[in-house]
Amino acid sequence: MNDFGFDLLATSGAARAGLLHTAHGDVPTPTFMAVGTAGTVKAMTADAVRETGAKIVLGNTYHLMLRPTAERVARLGGLHKMMDWPGPILTDSGGFQIMSLAKLRKLDEQGVTFRSHIDGSAHQLTPERSMEIQFLLDATITMVLDECTKFPATRDEAAISMRLSTRWAKRSRAAFVERPGYGQFGICQGSVYADLRRESAEALVEQNFEGYAIGGLAVGEGQAMMFEMLEIAAPLLPADKPRYLMGVGTPDDLLGAVGRGVDMFDCVMPTRAGRTARAFTSHGIFNLRNARFIDDGEALDPACSCLCCARHSRAYLHHLFRAQEILGPMLLTIHNLTYYQSLMQGARTAILADDYEGYCTRTREGWTHG
Amino acid sequence: MNDFGFDLLATSGAARAGLLHTAHGDVPTPTFMAVGTAGTVKAMTADAVRETGAKIVLGNTYHLMLRPTAERVARLGGLHKMMDWPGPILTDSGGFQIMSLAKLRKLDEQGVTFRSHIDGSAHQLTPERSMEIQFLLDATITMVLDECTKFPATRDEAAISMRLSTRWAKRSRAAFVERPGYGQFGICQGSVYADLRRESAEALVEQNFEGYAIGGLAVGEGQAMMFEMLEIAAPLLPADKPRYLMGVGTPDDLLGAVGRGVDMFDCVMPTRAGRTARAFTSHGIFNLRNARFIDDGEALDPACSCLCCARHSRAYLHHLFRAQEILGPMLLTIHNLTYYQSLMQGARTAILADDYEGYCTRTREGWTHG
Repeated sequence: MNDFGFDLLATSGAARAGLLHTAHGDVPTPTFMAVGTAGTVKAMTADAVRETGAKIVLGNTYHLMLRPTAERVARLGGLHKMMDWPGPILTDSGGFQIMSLAKLRKLDEQGVTFRSHIDGSAHQLTPERSMEIQFLLDATITMVLDECTKFPATRDEAAISMRLSTRWAKRSRAAFVERPGYGQFGICQGSVYADLRRESAEALVEQNFEGYAIGGLAVGEGQAMMFEMLEIAAPLLPADKPRYLMGVGTPDDLLGAVGRGVDMFDCVMPTRAGRTARAFTSHGIFNLRNARFIDDGEALDPACSCLCCARHSRAYLHHLFRAQEILGPMLLTIHNLTYYQSLMQGARTAILADDYEGYCTRTREGWTHG
Repeated sequence: MNDFGFDLLATSGAARAGLLHTAHGDVPTPTFMAVGTAGTVKAMTADAVRETGAKIVLGNTYHLMLRPTAERVARLGGLHKMMDWPGPILTDSGGFQIMSLAKLRKLDEQGVTFRSHIDGSAHQLTPERSMEIQFLLDATITMVLDECTKFPATRDEAAISMRLSTRWAKRSRAAFVERPGYGQFGICQGSVYADLRRESAEALVEQNFEGYAIGGLAVGEGQAMMFEMLEIAAPLLPADKPRYLMGVGTPDDLLGAVGRGVDMFDCVMPTRAGRTARAFTSHGIFNLRNARFIDDGEALDPACSCLCCARHSRAYLHHLFRAQEILGPMLLTIHNLTYYQSLMQGARTAILADDYEGYCTRTREGWTHG
């Protein structure tokens, strides 16, 4: 079993190409993590996820703790075995989704109490319990429990929230069970306030996490403000540790964030869009329900080699979505995830050749040709 | 391109093992055809269908003529290309589903007029138009247009209906465009009346079809009556042509029908059941939503080598159905179709060894061990 670690291999401007080492395999970065909320990347077999080029997937603690429960996942041999994904898995802490999905939630110094959105059952999530759950799930990368500061927040609100997250990060670190090849990431908060971001980052770096996430962005502040915050926050984090921007984003968001020093991403966008007929391609974003595709015999994205693009036409995809056939979401999820992976692979290749800006320019230019 | 043909290789009692030759490849029989109603076997990629062992799939003329339309399928290169299935495809005539799905349907000597269940548009289907549609779809095996006699029917009703189907079969034969490796099947009607079945079969055999279907069964008459009718109808059909029992059935139905001389089957049962958590296994039928599976770490069917059984537990399947994840229907459809294929492959092996009754006894015995 390897030690957990990160090799920074090259930079191009602020963009970084690296290699993340874990107990469950290596991950070339920058990387996009497909979201497997409830122990499955929606509408995908694990083989299909692998074929997109994905090296690491994400699981959601909130969903899994409620169903099938962390203890049951552990009895079944852990999340890797249960979902047929022997590669690395990152789990979130559960905090973000409690605040967006659960009922009757109450947050205090100790943690969060809430009722399940599934059956109304009462639960408490503390930093210690979140670490225990992620241990039971056998997460390769464990996230600290934090409070994702709401947006907008006043400076005082943001400071109070960030400092609670800082205290929870220390408790999360203390509760983390070290194992070779497993890591834990801290999460930088501070909303849109540069000095709070600095205070958060400095407190986290003292804890010497194996990696650092940037949280509290992509919550309504807009891309320009998000990029501004990344320019402030990313340099505050150690260059020799991976950086993860949580819950982001569009292909254009990813290009901009990689260009500001981010290594890892997750987002439901490619999978959710795939289920609603929206396609991300090298020629921009299409909605396959659109009547313009009804007789279009071309591949969805001629530049793509995924099963969807290699074997089927836009007209067939249009037909599948019109007929509400499950294969429509299946094929378009395959494509969208493949597109996200190829976008990150292209970025990595360009960074290694110190041509990242050129890559971004060419890629964005392609999006205008839809 | 090969000629269309059928080699009868062995018998075991009345059960037959054969090899069907078509322009799109050979089909060992007995065989089960997965149903690809609207140009997709529901919840399956074409690769996944192939991996179940399927050699031939079925398409539904009624659905395809309405959406995406036969002319559009033809412009897209035919059904094989559109759905990524280069193997043989059998299409039904459309008649059965008009009577069960369409609105304001009216049947006369000329054909059937009806309104689409999708958008209310008016259509007419005649024997000639059904043949044209199936030609445009590029069906490897074209079915004659018939009227599936309702059940129960009086002798007079059954005779009138069967004789209309006989006249339509002659018009269908006249309208069929012969191409090397393509075939057309007649359909024997006559409800539960032996003399009508004989009259129907004799009239069809005069037309020298490439194969013969037995229709108007599995419509409510019960398994015992269905088997009785098969014992009457199958011997009326030429031994050197394939025999297809339409719309059947459960694994037990298939074993009984093969034992009475049937070579080909189609049914939505394995795919539909797969989407509603019902599993066909060598140990009987399970409903994966049942709480007994919540902690069951075993493979669904330890005797099965499909992706679902090789990689996942019953507890995971239970979780996926509880969480309404698309992967549940995907995995269970893979399994159910694989089970149906292995049931037919086992039957074929046993027939070639002249041990079909032994195979049925062992298989049925296994079903009692759930």
